[in-house]
Amino acid sequence: MKKPSFYMLLFFLVFCGALAGCAASSTSSSGSDAGSDDVLYQVSTLNALMQGVYDGEITFDQLTKEGDLGIGTFDGLDGEGIVLDGKVYQVRADGKAVQADGSGKTPFAVVTDFEADEQVQLSNINDLSQLQTELDKLLPNPNMFYAFKVEGTFKYVKTRSVPKQNKPYPPLAEVTKTQPTFEFHDVKGTLVGFWCPSFARDVNLPGYHLHFLTADREAGGHLLECSMEEGTVSVDTTTGFHMILPQNEHFAQVDLGHTQEEEIEKVEQ
Amino acid sequence: MKKPSFYMLLFFLVFCGALAGCAASSTSSSGSDAGSDDVLYQVSTLNALMQGVYDGEITFDQLTKEGDLGIGTFDGLDGEGIVLDGKVYQVRADGKAVQADGSGKTPFAVVTDFEADEQVQLSNINDLSQLQTELDKLLPNPNMFYAFKVEGTFKYVKTRSVPKQNKPYPPLAEVTKTQPTFEFHDVKGTLVGFWCPSFARDVNLPGYHLHFLTADREAGGHLLECSMEEGTVSVDTTTGFHMILPQNEHFAQVDLGHTQEEEIEKVEQ
Repeated sequence: MKKPSFYMLLFFLVFCGALAGCAASSTSSSGSDAGSDDVLYQVSTLNALMQGVYDGEITFDQLTKEGDLGIGTFDGLDGEGIVLDGKVYQVRADGKAVQADGSGKTPFAVVTDFEADEQVQLSNINDLSQLQTELDKLLPNPNMFYAFKVEGTFKYVKTRSVPKQNKPYPPLAEVTKTQPTFEFHDVKGTLVGFWCPSFARDVNLPGYHLHFLTADREAGGHLLECSMEEGTVSVDTTTGFHMILPQNEHFAQVDLGHTQEEEIEKVEQ
Repeated sequence: MKKPSFYMLLFFLVFCGALAGCAASSTSSSGSDAGSDDVLYQVSTLNALMQGVYDGEITFDQLTKEGDLGIGTFDGLDGEGIVLDGKVYQVRADGKAVQADGSGKTPFAVVTDFEADEQVQLSNINDLSQLQTELDKLLPNPNMFYAFKVEGTFKYVKTRSVPKQNKPYPPLAEVTKTQPTFEFHDVKGTLVGFWCPSFARDVNLPGYHLHFLTADREAGGHLLECSMEEGTVSVDTTTGFHMILPQNEHFAQVDLGHTQEEEIEKVEQ
């Protein structure tokens, strides 16, 4: 199972020293019903978002009918979104999280009705690369979609958010060039997100895409790096993929005929 | 709007002579509610089928709950399927159509609850290439999925089917090397199928994919060529794409990390 290679570059050496020699220990704790018919519900395609299709398509009230856990963004690219326990949190460009209004709209989001098929305890995870290596062990089938929830105590978390954009919307790669980033030390919180198979490259990001929300629900963002003291990983296999496409003129006009894989890697770092 | 180039090669000159100079005439006859939330429901990915994942995944009784019009194949690749008015027709390797048992399973299928957003009359269509050029005019947005139904009087139709395979299943390109083909002259019937956007290349076939069923429901197959005297084209825009992935070991094991675009073109000819 191949992970996006750019994460490999993001070692945070400060923790490597402190935690060197501490192997991650994991124990499977629950049975599996991975044969369930869970559905990953997605609004728009990531490639359209990359090209600046930032107008909200459906409301968060509609979105949370389709899933209680997930990630996304807001009308005009107004921050990073986390859906957790059916509530939508918006991390604006100052890094602070607020609960989003259900009548607000999203131009891109991915959610699922989360029911853990498996749970695993992890400890002494040095960095995101190591976390992903551990998560890989929970993915028996590289041709499926998976949803994750990681509730943990983190030594370090680095996130980013994005500021609201005005029309004409610039491409996402332009926006993230000056993205605000945030660092958290010794913080409890939850990672939520997805692993997508390679054949999802034209509509989403193959590999992992995780967002972070602090336990007090007051901060978070798109995950760039983390070091976890201990945590509980829950994984949900989703055998269905339901994508709805924006019905606005901007979406109709962008060229989605090629995957901007390198651009997406840059933006997701 | 780009069509698969291989169709361009399939001119049937015998009709070009007879019908030369007769331009197709088309008139739009109904209003549009293309803003509807129609869903294209798909079982598995075409790339998986290409690689021999032929074991049936869901029953036709389940499939027809998701849509009353579409195309597909059968457990073990046992023929070409047409879903029309909620009934499933199976065109086996002898070219004859029978109504399929609802308890039978499909390894790959695409259906939608068909509600025409637009209807157009066409006449004097010399070949499939010209038909596709006319259908192109009904696709305002290259980033959507569309379903088609063409009820017509055809001067000529050429189809193919595929014989049931045994395990270990050979790839589809091997099977179609010796595919039986069938020719129909002066026949009434219906074309059903879909147009997929370029960003569907890893899960389906970009461009058109049409199957044919005679008006007496007794023959048909995967469309290779046609010449239409006159016909009514109905088109339905589907803004949703719902794919379910097979939960069998074979699907888990195939490499879906790259699109076999050239292979798919060969097979779909």
